[in-house]
Amino acid sequence: MSIIARRGIHYMHKLNAPNVSSAMLEKGQNRVIDASLTLIRERAKLKGELVRALGGAVATSSLLGVPLGHNSSFLQGPAFAPPRIREAIWCGSTNSTTEEGKDLHDARVLTDVGDVPIQEIRDCGVDDHRLMNVIGEAVKIVMEEDPLRPLVLGGDHSISFPVIRAVSEKLGGPVDVLHLDAHPDNYDAFEGNIYSHASSFARVMEGDYVRRLLQVGIRSITTEGREQAKKFGVEQYEMRTFSRDRHFLENLKLGEGVKGVYISIDVDCLDPAFAPGVSHIEPGGLSFRDVLNILHNLQGDVVAGDVVEFNPQRDTVDGMTAMVAAKLVREMTAKISK
Amino acid sequence: MSIIARRGIHYMHKLNAPNVSSAMLEKGQNRVIDASLTLIRERAKLKGELVRALGGAVATSSLLGVPLGHNSSFLQGPAFAPPRIREAIWCGSTNSTTEEGKDLHDARVLTDVGDVPIQEIRDCGVDDHRLMNVIGEAVKIVMEEDPLRPLVLGGDHSISFPVIRAVSEKLGGPVDVLHLDAHPDNYDAFEGNIYSHASSFARVMEGDYVRRLLQVGIRSITTEGREQAKKFGVEQYEMRTFSRDRHFLENLKLGEGVKGVYISIDVDCLDPAFAPGVSHIEPGGLSFRDVLNILHNLQGDVVAGDVVEFNPQRDTVDGMTAMVAAKLVREMTAKISK
Amino acid sequence: MSIIARRGIHYMHKLNAPNVSSAMLEKGQNRVIDASLTLIRERAKLKGELVRALGGAVATSSLLGVPLGHNSSFLQGPAFAPPRIREAIWCGSTNSTTEEGKDLHDARVLTDVGDVPIQEIRDCGVDDHRLMNVIGEAVKIVMEEDPLRPLVLGGDHSISFPVIRAVSEKLGGPVDVLHLDAHPDNYDAFEGNIYSHASSFARVMEGDYVRRLLQVGIRSITTEGREQAKKFGVEQYEMRTFSRDRHFLENLKLGEGVKGVYISIDVDCLDPAFAPGVSHIEPGGLSFRDVLNILHNLQGDVVAGDVVEFNPQRDTVDGMTAMVAAKLVREMTAKISK
Amino acid sequence: MSIIARRGIHYMHKLNAPNVSSAMLEKGQNRVIDASLTLIRERAKLKGELVRALGGAVATSSLLGVPLGHNSSFLQGPAFAPPRIREAIWCGSTNSTTEEGKDLHDARVLTDVGDVPIQEIRDCGVDDHRLMNVIGEAVKIVMEEDPLRPLVLGGDHSISFPVIRAVSEKLGGPVDVLHLDAHPDNYDAFEGNIYSHASSFARVMEGDYVRRLLQVGIRSITTEGREQAKKFGVEQYEMRTFSRDRHFLENLKLGEGVKGVYISIDVDCLDPAFAPGVSHIEPGGLSFRDVLNILHNLQGDVVAGDVVEFNPQRDTVDGMTAMVAAKLVREMTAKISK
Amino acid sequence: MSIIARRGIHYMHKLNAPNVSSAMLEKGQNRVIDASLTLIRERAKLKGELVRALGGAVATSSLLGVPLGHNSSFLQGPAFAPPRIREAIWCGSTNSTTEEGKDLHDARVLTDVGDVPIQEIRDCGVDDHRLMNVIGEAVKIVMEEDPLRPLVLGGDHSISFPVIRAVSEKLGGPVDVLHLDAHPDNYDAFEGNIYSHASSFARVMEGDYVRRLLQVGIRSITTEGREQAKKFGVEQYEMRTFSRDRHFLENLKLGEGVKGVYISIDVDCLDPAFAPGVSHIEPGGLSFRDVLNILHNLQGDVVAGDVVEFNPQRDTVDGMTAMVAAKLVREMTAKISK
Amino acid sequence: MSIIARRGIHYMHKLNAPNVSSAMLEKGQNRVIDASLTLIRERAKLKGELVRALGGAVATSSLLGVPLGHNSSFLQGPAFAPPRIREAIWCGSTNSTTEEGKDLHDARVLTDVGDVPIQEIRDCGVDDHRLMNVIGEAVKIVMEEDPLRPLVLGGDHSISFPVIRAVSEKLGGPVDVLHLDAHPDNYDAFEGNIYSHASSFARVMEGDYVRRLLQVGIRSITTEGREQAKKFGVEQYEMRTFSRDRHFLENLKLGEGVKGVYISIDVDCLDPAFAPGVSHIEPGGLSFRDVLNILHNLQGDVVAGDVVEFNPQRDTVDGMTAMVAAKLVREMTAKISK
Repeated sequence: MSIIARRGIHYMHKLNAPNVSSAMLEKGQNRVIDASLTLIRERAKLKGELVRALGGAVATSSLLGVPLGHNSSFLQGPAFAPPRIREAIWCGSTNSTTEEGKDLHDARVLTDVGDVPIQEIRDCGVDDHRLMNVIGEAVKIVMEEDPLRPLVLGGDHSISFPVIRAVSEKLGGPVDVLHLDAHPDNYDAFEGNIYSHASSFARVMEGDYVRRLLQVGIRSITTEGREQAKKFGVEQYEMRTFSRDRHFLENLKLGEGVKGVYISIDVDCLDPAFAPGVSHIEPGGLSFRDVLNILHNLQGDVVAGDVVEFNPQRDTVDGMTAMVAAKLVREMTAKISK
Repeated sequence: MSIIARRGIHYMHKLNAPNVSSAMLEKGQNRVIDASLTLIRERAKLKGELVRALGGAVATSSLLGVPLGHNSSFLQGPAFAPPRIREAIWCGSTNSTTEEGKDLHDARVLTDVGDVPIQEIRDCGVDDHRLMNVIGEAVKIVMEEDPLRPLVLGGDHSISFPVIRAVSEKLGGPVDVLHLDAHPDNYDAFEGNIYSHASSFARVMEGDYVRRLLQVGIRSITTEGREQAKKFGVEQYEMRTFSRDRHFLENLKLGEGVKGVYISIDVDCLDPAFAPGVSHIEPGGLSFRDVLNILHNLQGDVVAGDVVEFNPQRDTVDGMTAMVAAKLVREMTAKISK
Repeated sequence: MSIIARRGIHYMHKLNAPNVSSAMLEKGQNRVIDASLTLIRERAKLKGELVRALGGAVATSSLLGVPLGHNSSFLQGPAFAPPRIREAIWCGSTNSTTEEGKDLHDARVLTDVGDVPIQEIRDCGVDDHRLMNVIGEAVKIVMEEDPLRPLVLGGDHSISFPVIRAVSEKLGGPVDVLHLDAHPDNYDAFEGNIYSHASSFARVMEGDYVRRLLQVGIRSITTEGREQAKKFGVEQYEMRTFSRDRHFLENLKLGEGVKGVYISIDVDCLDPAFAPGVSHIEPGGLSFRDVLNILHNLQGDVVAGDVVEFNPQRDTVDGMTAMVAAKLVREMTAKISK
Repeated sequence: MSIIARRGIHYMHKLNAPNVSSAMLEKGQNRVIDASLTLIRERAKLKGELVRALGGAVATSSLLGVPLGHNSSFLQGPAFAPPRIREAIWCGSTNSTTEEGKDLHDARVLTDVGDVPIQEIRDCGVDDHRLMNVIGEAVKIVMEEDPLRPLVLGGDHSISFPVIRAVSEKLGGPVDVLHLDAHPDNYDAFEGNIYSHASSFARVMEGDYVRRLLQVGIRSITTEGREQAKKFGVEQYEMRTFSRDRHFLENLKLGEGVKGVYISIDVDCLDPAFAPGVSHIEPGGLSFRDVLNILHNLQGDVVAGDVVEFNPQRDTVDGMTAMVAAKLVREMTAKISK
Repeated sequence: MSIIARRGIHYMHKLNAPNVSSAMLEKGQNRVIDASLTLIRERAKLKGELVRALGGAVATSSLLGVPLGHNSSFLQGPAFAPPRIREAIWCGSTNSTTEEGKDLHDARVLTDVGDVPIQEIRDCGVDDHRLMNVIGEAVKIVMEEDPLRPLVLGGDHSISFPVIRAVSEKLGGPVDVLHLDAHPDNYDAFEGNIYSHASSFARVMEGDYVRRLLQVGIRSITTEGREQAKKFGVEQYEMRTFSRDRHFLENLKLGEGVKGVYISIDVDCLDPAFAPGVSHIEPGGLSFRDVLNILHNLQGDVVAGDVVEFNPQRDTVDGMTAMVAAKLVREMTAKISK
Repeated sequence: MSIIARRGIHYMHKLNAPNVSSAMLEKGQNRVIDASLTLIRERAKLKGELVRALGGAVATSSLLGVPLGHNSSFLQGPAFAPPRIREAIWCGSTNSTTEEGKDLHDARVLTDVGDVPIQEIRDCGVDDHRLMNVIGEAVKIVMEEDPLRPLVLGGDHSISFPVIRAVSEKLGGPVDVLHLDAHPDNYDAFEGNIYSHASSFARVMEGDYVRRLLQVGIRSITTEGREQAKKFGVEQYEMRTFSRDRHFLENLKLGEGVKGVYISIDVDCLDPAFAPGVSHIEPGGLSFRDVLNILHNLQGDVVAGDVVEFNPQRDTVDGMTAMVAAKLVREMTAKISK
């Protein structure tokens, strides 16, 4: 008997005890999943009604938290990120206006439908395959409430796969993806886990969910990472050549001829000087202003996005990285809403 | 226009915009609350079925998180506590056996029904009066699933009022309460807030929910605090005289003739040397062993309890107070379950 | 009765007790203020004598600490900054020479007249209006001791108003101001406080104290901030366009036709990666080298300056921001002295 | 030429430059000292007037900060302590009532005359001999303002010598001293410095300032420390035998037949678990409650006291030791005032 | 291909590459081991000569560091402990005298032979079985230099097995062991590792190395832990009953009729309030003074000992646990030397 | 008798006690040194044999730790760096491939011969002159094992002198040196210490060890620093003009006509935002990407190098600077090995 549990967030693993019937178990799990999605739906409905009553919005970004950290190879802290990012968005030390002048207190600019109750669902013994579907369902529920558009707060990077899949399925065709990251996250099955946070973009490219995938900020990449990119036609922009690529990246035009643009920001695309609170410290990254320049100048219809891999357990004492993640969310909100 | 929000966790306060009807709003709120309670109910049901299938349990402690921090006068960090306590309970650095030998991996000893989605409900504009009722409802839902008994993870101390009220209402009569704390928390309406974390035991004593209230560890008390105690017949044991009272407190017998015993542990009953991660640092408190001695030797049927006011934003870098709060929960679990 | 004091630095607020005559109070306050200014004067005198005895200096920067933090909207830590900056200036880990070769140990380059005893004065019940006058008086006292020029160590940004006013009054005409900051600090009366650290440049522009005001590093600005700038003719350079403006800003020529140049550096003009110890973390700012490039290449007669808003309570464990603030002071010293 | 200053707080050491006349220097120093004492005197006067106006007080404790750290053998952090202790005394996380019910907001209980400007005086080249006299002068100035009694905030322990000397000289005879500390601080001249913080009680005992000196909490003592104690008739209570001595120490009666009792608390009398923010971490000390038990039960007229050796540069991130030092000051205040 | 190395201290694991002959490898390893032991021997010799030249010592404690952390189930930080403990022993913040008056600067009281180069040896591919023998050899080498007695600085608790075995073999018979710890460390083969830090006392009891084993401070123990204790005749004193056992434990008499007493102190015997820098935070432990009382009052000839499981990577910012571990070593030194 | 040791790493200073003969002492020291070098030699031999057995390597970088911190003017923390850098090189949070694709797990790319046991040698009373020779000897021992090339992990910068001297002597002629640093480190004898970490490049230039010395990143320099550079023909590139010099520095071609290129990286060449864990915080430095650009594009045969002045005692809580130092070592490894 091993008396030492693996480090990480505990979940119930005794459900398959001999005198527990699997039928009873599965019915219970389904009821819990249904109740979870109902909670998201009711909140999305109320927020949608509110925005429509205020009138005039074509697109409104809507925060959806996905506190999932167990598909990370190293640390599980990103599971704690969504409430910390929310707190930092509204922190009294900065005002509620984005750099280009949108007011975040206007519900037509920013709404919030809360978190998918990931831990509660996992703790009932639900496996990763179904969990990924639940995340996708939650994204679609948000998209049903026009004009809400999902802005997902991770969580580790494994969540980008079900989110992008759901966005594409809901819109009925592929999107272009701008992916800022230190790593390509395109292993076939990292450590044997097809849902690993290091494999999400292999999953994404295997479907028909994405036309162009641009990866920016890359500086930790193996031979497999380069070969997978070639196989999937990924456009990789490594930090090694950033000074050469800068002009191109600060003038992107994406999403034409497809259903729009999806932006996925792994906080570790930034140099750790700018964002120390991440699981994978990889020096030599982008500055915060570099990211904003790329984001502000991007032309395209941003239909959804995510900010992932912020790890509050590694942040500085005064929460600098929470503020950094929050400002990424704030500026992304301005990009989405109109 | 004030452009600086108060520090703390943001909630939507624009719901009363002119072109938003209050009927639409109230209906939406009700749907969100119903969905929240449904989620708790489905989880409690599944856990109850599981424990009954395993057989043999008379009482099983069941964690219920209440991530509420806004009724705190000073800092709101306790809203982040429940996931941190859960992580520490199962942390690989210690084994799963309590000091007197119960195995926490046995679902008949410890189950978990997840968190009341406090932030999601508040963010829809639900006020504190209704929020307190929702917390009470959640507690009753757990108690409906025999043999589950609620062990509530705070949150700030304001939650003890709706929890104790619900326990008493559900059991049909008063309980005895053992309350460990640096403060009496019995102001009439602290800073005008009747639901303040500093007023919960005034609320508790006004109803018929409690017969005897014993307060242990007190060392920050005003004249009002002493007068309120006299008015309500509270038995206060101050730290000033702890060496004299120790023998009595290590041999308590409670709950006979009423519906049982409720234990409320404010982590700041401990000296901050033992629990630095609290909002109110008040030197001169109990040692961890003092608390365990009181708890282990208490005679009585413990029907429910809470561990509150752990503030992860003030903890040490390696999370010592999380481990302290977790061990309090673990030993309380052993006291409840049978 | 509120038994919880507001967070912040305590000051005596019982002076208006019924049996305290206001005449007695005012006389006492005046004596305290006089003694405070006498202390500054004596130190300035001694330093001036010393510099003149050494001979050959046309302008000598003279540190004057103003440990005032209560006009900050969020945190009061800048009140603790001056001793930390001083310690860091002389910290044994760096040498005493500025980047362009001036020796800080040479009293003709750098002297220090100590702090205005802000807390002591406030604690006697002196209000902000008089306090601002005292700060101005202290600045003038320094300027009386030729060749001393004031280099003020904040303190929050509210102090720039009385300092610039005093400089202009003493010199008999307006100056040009180079203002590096993440925020424009030009609200009419932030949260109703005309002396707020977010309103100091509205106060400055209302007088005839300033001809041109250049603001560099701006990246958190509301509509009011932009309108106030227009009204007062402020030249704002936002971070959004810094790569475009860089050449202009690295070749500034200021102060001709007026009494000289005043430089006000809010430490948060820097990206928080370079200066985490500030109250308002606003990612996307200047690099340290950007600031030095602007400073080193500026042409003009710098008659005084300030370095404000360093908050030691938010600094890293090894005091990195203290070193950053200190180097700003050191290089500013080199710019002033001749 | 040494271009690297010694670690620690910088002070001006270039005053003896060849072309600076010593007459000019001495005159400047005297003027600075006079202005410093004038500032204290004016503040004390005002506070005395205030308390007398309120009426009814026989004894009122009055805080006097002495931010002096350079006589410490190891770290100079205690020079930064007084503002931190003041902030913690009034921190909003605790109420303003002492454990036995006195209200600190009542000026008859607690006043404050501010800090002796130690750094400013030293920076003019004033030596330690004169500095010690200045501290003593400041204490006497406070005592002149009946009913103010000095409660000195260190600073390192070297300050207790000039303070006790001044108290005794002012009262016209010896006092009894209760000294809580991990160390006896009675070296003849530690590292050749007769004013060392490790020699202050040798200085104290050489005069006729003290009748009985009781040292409690001792657990780091050399042979010299024991011999000096014997020579001076000091009553030493070591931690080794604390469980045996506890009853005696919790029932002290001091000060009869002399001018009263002086209490000197070195924060390191506490075990570092309770007070990590000290320069000399010496495990095995008193608990916070042990100290309060001794203090609360002491019988005698406490005429003055000090709380020293808190080092904010070594405190925990959330300032626990500041809170501990502040509570010592608060409870000492209650002991002094009547 | 797994591209992510396990967390922990790296060691060379490619030595069994195809074209590396095992003969060459083994010869190289042997030379490395020999050189390692030679280095210890030469240092021990020199220290022995020195002590004998000074004359008069019957027993002199000699520090021997064993920076080994890889047999720990959770964290490997104890591998970094020895240099931190040494630094803290001589830290200028405390004097060099033990509580009962021995001078640590006297080489007859304390010498140091340095560290066994564990990482260097492991990095050559030496397995744990041989490594344990090397540790034992190093201990014997120290014991050959009369009057040196080994005081071993861990490292994790796995090292106590080879150390106690070596002590017993060298002395030619069993010893009595006083073992202070939160855990019994007597699993048969924890996680399949017979050399695990959680199994060392099972190994110790299987040989004839120990007569009586007393375990004090126990508060995390499984059923297996209690059964193993029964099987081996271990005397366990749990924290649950410490107040009852205190008198007995403060008056121990051990080692008569055998070769002497061995003391093994796991720093986590202390409550984490007193020693936060450990891998396994288990609240409810001994106070530092409790440990000293047991140690100071123990009667018996202490022939060797160890202080283990201090984890500097979990210590507070100012290294409090390093000071705690150092004082345990200092007082143990006083107990051994004569 | 001084009972307080100087701050820093303790070393034995009682060896010159009256009854210790100097002959005995010297003999003992020699034996310790010999054993130390033997340990290095044996490890180098084994590693060399291993690499040669694998075949195909022309140059293999070999880590050699020199944990020496006492020649630092300010802090001695770099003495603790080598084990921290090693841990970070292999930290599971990043993969084992360098940016341009070399696999660090291949022993032909990277080997490690361990640390020179600096503390053990010093603790026997060996002086700096001999210690420097020992370091040089260790370097030569590595170079004897073809194809190993030394990549030295400091330690403070004083070690670059004996390392470069040894490299040049071993190769039989001068090298070109690329030196990245905030400081020129070329004082004649800083604070009278010819072996100071601030004088190492004066020592280096006095011999015939170096042809061209390029210093990059300089931003703290005195008049002496500039004069010494002129005297020795050093090519200094200051940060003040980096934007102008960038193109030249990113296209360096060195080492032709001499024995090759030596690269010495002081971690403080980086702006402290990117590397906070250094002793000398000097804002305004290079970004991490700037350093990589210089390194990656350098043309020349790199025969050896060092990474020095990382100070773990000043690092952030999650060890960011350790990761930064490790990535410098990783990329330098890729540059050396072929």
